[in-house]
Amino acid sequence: MAQTQDIKYSFGLWTVGWSATDPFGPSTRPELDPAESVRKLADLGAWGFTFHDDDVFAFGSDDTERQRCIDSVKKAASDTGMVCEMVTTNTFSHPVFKDGAFTSNNRGVRRFGLRKVLRNVDLAADMGASTFVMWGGREGTEYDNSKDLNAAHARYAEGIDTVAAYIKDRGYDLKIALEPKPNEPRGDIFLPTIGHAIALIDSLDNGDIVGVNPETGHEQMAGLNYTHGLALALHLGKLFHIDLNGQHGPRYDQDLVFGHGDLLSAFFTVDMLENGFPNGGPRYEGPRHFDYKPSRTEYLDGVWESAKANMETYSMLAAKSAEYRADAEVQEAFKHAGIIELGEPTLDADENFDTFLADRSAYEDFDVEGAATRDYGLVRLHQLALKHLIG
Amino acid sequence: MAQTQDIKYSFGLWTVGWSATDPFGPSTRPELDPAESVRKLADLGAWGFTFHDDDVFAFGSDDTERQRCIDSVKKAASDTGMVCEMVTTNTFSHPVFKDGAFTSNNRGVRRFGLRKVLRNVDLAADMGASTFVMWGGREGTEYDNSKDLNAAHARYAEGIDTVAAYIKDRGYDLKIALEPKPNEPRGDIFLPTIGHAIALIDSLDNGDIVGVNPETGHEQMAGLNYTHGLALALHLGKLFHIDLNGQHGPRYDQDLVFGHGDLLSAFFTVDMLENGFPNGGPRYEGPRHFDYKPSRTEYLDGVWESAKANMETYSMLAAKSAEYRADAEVQEAFKHAGIIELGEPTLDADENFDTFLADRSAYEDFDVEGAATRDYGLVRLHQLALKHLIG
Amino acid sequence: MAQTQDIKYSFGLWTVGWSATDPFGPSTRPELDPAESVRKLADLGAWGFTFHDDDVFAFGSDDTERQRCIDSVKKAASDTGMVCEMVTTNTFSHPVFKDGAFTSNNRGVRRFGLRKVLRNVDLAADMGASTFVMWGGREGTEYDNSKDLNAAHARYAEGIDTVAAYIKDRGYDLKIALEPKPNEPRGDIFLPTIGHAIALIDSLDNGDIVGVNPETGHEQMAGLNYTHGLALALHLGKLFHIDLNGQHGPRYDQDLVFGHGDLLSAFFTVDMLENGFPNGGPRYEGPRHFDYKPSRTEYLDGVWESAKANMETYSMLAAKSAEYRADAEVQEAFKHAGIIELGEPTLDADENFDTFLADRSAYEDFDVEGAATRDYGLVRLHQLALKHLIG
Amino acid sequence: MAQTQDIKYSFGLWTVGWSATDPFGPSTRPELDPAESVRKLADLGAWGFTFHDDDVFAFGSDDTERQRCIDSVKKAASDTGMVCEMVTTNTFSHPVFKDGAFTSNNRGVRRFGLRKVLRNVDLAADMGASTFVMWGGREGTEYDNSKDLNAAHARYAEGIDTVAAYIKDRGYDLKIALEPKPNEPRGDIFLPTIGHAIALIDSLDNGDIVGVNPETGHEQMAGLNYTHGLALALHLGKLFHIDLNGQHGPRYDQDLVFGHGDLLSAFFTVDMLENGFPNGGPRYEGPRHFDYKPSRTEYLDGVWESAKANMETYSMLAAKSAEYRADAEVQEAFKHAGIIELGEPTLDADENFDTFLADRSAYEDFDVEGAATRDYGLVRLHQLALKHLIG
Repeated sequence: MAQTQDIKYSFGLWTVGWSATDPFGPSTRPELDPAESVRKLADLGAWGFTFHDDDVFAFGSDDTERQRCIDSVKKAASDTGMVCEMVTTNTFSHPVFKDGAFTSNNRGVRRFGLRKVLRNVDLAADMGASTFVMWGGREGTEYDNSKDLNAAHARYAEGIDTVAAYIKDRGYDLKIALEPKPNEPRGDIFLPTIGHAIALIDSLDNGDIVGVNPETGHEQMAGLNYTHGLALALHLGKLFHIDLNGQHGPRYDQDLVFGHGDLLSAFFTVDMLENGFPNGGPRYEGPRHFDYKPSRTEYLDGVWESAKANMETYSMLAAKSAEYRADAEVQEAFKHAGIIELGEPTLDADENFDTFLADRSAYEDFDVEGAATRDYGLVRLHQLALKHLIG
Repeated sequence: MAQTQDIKYSFGLWTVGWSATDPFGPSTRPELDPAESVRKLADLGAWGFTFHDDDVFAFGSDDTERQRCIDSVKKAASDTGMVCEMVTTNTFSHPVFKDGAFTSNNRGVRRFGLRKVLRNVDLAADMGASTFVMWGGREGTEYDNSKDLNAAHARYAEGIDTVAAYIKDRGYDLKIALEPKPNEPRGDIFLPTIGHAIALIDSLDNGDIVGVNPETGHEQMAGLNYTHGLALALHLGKLFHIDLNGQHGPRYDQDLVFGHGDLLSAFFTVDMLENGFPNGGPRYEGPRHFDYKPSRTEYLDGVWESAKANMETYSMLAAKSAEYRADAEVQEAFKHAGIIELGEPTLDADENFDTFLADRSAYEDFDVEGAATRDYGLVRLHQLALKHLIG
Repeated sequence: MAQTQDIKYSFGLWTVGWSATDPFGPSTRPELDPAESVRKLADLGAWGFTFHDDDVFAFGSDDTERQRCIDSVKKAASDTGMVCEMVTTNTFSHPVFKDGAFTSNNRGVRRFGLRKVLRNVDLAADMGASTFVMWGGREGTEYDNSKDLNAAHARYAEGIDTVAAYIKDRGYDLKIALEPKPNEPRGDIFLPTIGHAIALIDSLDNGDIVGVNPETGHEQMAGLNYTHGLALALHLGKLFHIDLNGQHGPRYDQDLVFGHGDLLSAFFTVDMLENGFPNGGPRYEGPRHFDYKPSRTEYLDGVWESAKANMETYSMLAAKSAEYRADAEVQEAFKHAGIIELGEPTLDADENFDTFLADRSAYEDFDVEGAATRDYGLVRLHQLALKHLIG
Repeated sequence: MAQTQDIKYSFGLWTVGWSATDPFGPSTRPELDPAESVRKLADLGAWGFTFHDDDVFAFGSDDTERQRCIDSVKKAASDTGMVCEMVTTNTFSHPVFKDGAFTSNNRGVRRFGLRKVLRNVDLAADMGASTFVMWGGREGTEYDNSKDLNAAHARYAEGIDTVAAYIKDRGYDLKIALEPKPNEPRGDIFLPTIGHAIALIDSLDNGDIVGVNPETGHEQMAGLNYTHGLALALHLGKLFHIDLNGQHGPRYDQDLVFGHGDLLSAFFTVDMLENGFPNGGPRYEGPRHFDYKPSRTEYLDGVWESAKANMETYSMLAAKSAEYRADAEVQEAFKHAGIIELGEPTLDADENFDTFLADRSAYEDFDVEGAATRDYGLVRLHQLALKHLIG
């Protein structure tokens, strides 16, 4: 597929593999063989894949069965050239984790969860993955008094830091990416947003190899702007991985196809990822990874149609955004709006407090009225983008 | 008032002073003299007060008028013993700031805004305040393409860092507290949550004197758990100030009386602030500061009734939470739920990766089934809290 | 239990019977025998119970098995005196209903769903239930173009009207209560709120026996005020049944214990249900029915603790609200606020357009300034309620 | 402008006339002369305009001033051919309405508000408007106990019914359209959604001339699907007028340009308005009316750019939706998904309960497994729409 040649698209095996159990009904589709999913995704034009341990071998599998399952996926990867770019651990499905893993009130569960994760770090290294994602889906509460909220954060930090130390200890070429989510399945999940995750990371001893894996819908479930969040993570050097999908604001986690939620937001996300910031700056170089669910109304055709739709939409948005950025009128509107000017530091390079406070043009003589009546042209600029998108 | 004797209650002068202009109607109340508000709040039992520059002297006041207004407030403080504990700057009302202050696309506005803030830092020091709050209400966008989102964060960081450096340069005994908010008046505001603010602070050269001033309703506008957010900020040593009020979830900023929104959440906030974490740990020692608005249906009696209601509610919740924590049944339920156990590190003090991986009791022999069928008793514990609250 | 003697508490068998499967994990508890649940709820002080067909006998059971299951529940009811007050049909779990039942794009599914419902109407009558609830959990879309939205409403109306006609045709003493929900499990569910449901009901031929069964959390998932919604339904004579539980605003359907979400809202709901409107008017006479889920962290003790907590909380709120309404200061504040005055029609009984337009006191000479500066005392009144609640 | 030739675009004079006061800052633009706005909108290609009384003449204007203002607007309309298609009354800005108009606790205010509305009904008729919109922005509460919630609905109904009766009494060719909104400026507004409004209308004596005027953003503030809401209103014969704009889900009322919020939703709204339902049915024949606000960052150029953007976006979406509906692949996908089949009644025309219950193919012999594993192709169909939109 032409449009997917140059972009590294990647899928979680749990996405196409979701058999469509939801809170009000059981599966509507059969379970898929993970190796077959790797082959099928390769056929559709994907570049890579990712998985949780439990996606490939059942919780509690013995070593033989576990290895058989891993080998099957490895062979599919080898046959197709698909890259296993990320591995993650399921510490949220089994009832043992019902009160969390790293923050469970049960210390035995915390230790068990940590061991499950470390074992999977070994597998990630073995698979050649470059990123190890951690989503603490059960790390949270329904009731504010059901945990010591300081201890919970301390235990969460301890757990993550231990995994990072282990990666360094073993010499693995892996980075950790934390995945924030505000709620569901817990009433309130710890590290609910990109910001909270980075704030905790900054307190770790081994935080240098820990960043974030923001998911479109997770930020939007809190009514937050996903593109803004990615920009902050990039600015802070912490955007290690991404999960693209679609969502309609604060409600249950919809995991729609990328672009099937807030389309304009998806356009600006792609524009930032593909074209960078108007004044340059940090870029995201990792795979374009989709974490979505084929709708429960679909059977197997719909599974693969929906997988294709993610790549197709991203590719269309990438093409549109390239035209948008190349448009001279857009560039002129960027300048008119001051977007290029925002790249200039507020203070002069050689300015100090004395000279700044002495600069009457900055304050006493500043043309307040002129600045107050400036027309930034932001609606026109937005409309230019919209016309490139749908024109 | 007995219940307010021991708790340091503080109010923004803009709270009682809000004349009730909203997006769909003009003021319903006259403007109040700030000095009179200080006196009145003292009568009601408050301990301190806070203000924006523009609350006390109009934007553009000349030096004489400015000083006259400041002196009037100082005299009221001196007469009543009210402490001016925090000062903040209005960089969001005047049209010059319509596209932001520190992140305005207009560099002249950025410099003007920075000067306005520095001037107010001097005033904060002069007033004897210990905290300098910065709420960047206009730092944001309605459209993702109306700013270079990396440059915007860079400029925001530059501005805050400059203010922090200035405080150090001048030797002021002041700490900065950033106030996050997800949206309103901008479509999406930068630093939308506690987490985002701390993440940016960690990147500053002078971040050691910068923390957060979380507002109840602002976190709840993003559907986030305020008490969780405070706990993270405390855990990271960044809870420098608080803004207490009430809100009904994602919608416009309601600024209700504290407790008049999510009452159970307010109870657990007070419990944490007054009684600390179950296993000890960092405490918030600053004032209990209210940032609310008397409803537009009220005239002047309602203004003062609502001010009283904040303190009264907090005091009632403080008393209830003390009883709750002293209850032996609650303490037993804490233990049963594993809340005390969560205070224990997951790893032993002398454990290393080799010993941990060799500990079969942690993984291979762990009683998964037993842990999976444990009854944590979290609903019962929550009900115990509710019974203390309304019993 | 003393406090539950006079209030008719009722539970869905699917509530305590929920084995805690959620979108991210399987069951943490065993399935319960429905008959045992009836006995246990009776022991705890409940008055009645309700169920879906599939709660009692598995989808596809043959007639013998079906009857055996029904008889088992009937015996438990008979042994304990528990009243089966409501029956409802599951048209959302089985994959056949993945695109809806009454609004499925597949006419065969629509007919099958309708037959399943009619069969269950017979059972409801046989059980002596007085209410037949219909929740169309799968009637909706993820994508606006996946149904003809006019035809969908027409089919929904046809289905409901047919059921109502059947009830009349058979002479059953049953009323239908539609249960609105905005989303989950569908992206957008038809009849998302109390208002939408009543609007459609008004268009039915047999709408006289159709009303609503509003659920606390469902309205709150749309950020709507549950008590306001109940009041509208009462005003329109359409409040036929209620589902009480707890929720924290727009997010996934939490189904917390009643009062464990927005406690102040729960207080005013109980106040309205138990004490009626300040100026009298329509009352809800049906059972106090709980539709909640015991948290997934709990095992069987937690199931019954949580069931008790619903009744206990309601009873406490009922007692508090009685005291609140009996307080002379509250009554005075009602008058001061004009709450009693709101009971008076705006027009005089004998007024016509000519006399009204000629009444200069109503407009030309009305004291606008006086009315504009009135202090309604609404914050004080709310604080009085809060003090009764937690005092 | 070519694309606006055939579509009747209309604007509220308060939209372009909004001088950009918001809760955190005063106006950034001068007030516009309403007559000049009419002329300017005509130049831009609009067909009609609408206004509140207070948009054209200040609250409290004497008769001479009022008539002068009206005549000025009439002349602009006459000069340009612009149609005054709708008039509405401001019963929410002046402080006299701070507790509502038709539901104010103050009976004097209720009577004053009703008189203000009736006077404006005369003006609407005089202007030749066909629709009279009523938005009760202050009809609501911040606290559940601040009104008798039954009496409030009774007074609201009384007020609306009186206005409808007056229209009939005077023989005016006017229909009333109620505008729902969930909150802001009140904490909870009565008639929060399309559904609630229609439900109350159905209880009126003169409800036949009362319908709804749904606003895109208002429904989306409750997380509801605007297109679904319009479809219900059409199905019930109650879609009398529309307010198009943009919003980003539950938060403050953003009033963005149409299409600048949820673009895919806007596409499907336009598709339904322009192309009707797939199986035919009721159509909306009224004007395409915009109720938006030019962003506060803009000065006068931005005002008119944003006005144009509404029409331009609608026209582009109209063109795209025509191509989408004409696409044979889309039509095939409609059939595949069962969208045409949904137009068929569930029961046969001659079917009765006996024959339906005797039809074994409907239940006993229905191929449940086949229906359960059907692939509806809804994701593919949605992707087809997306490709038409951005392709």
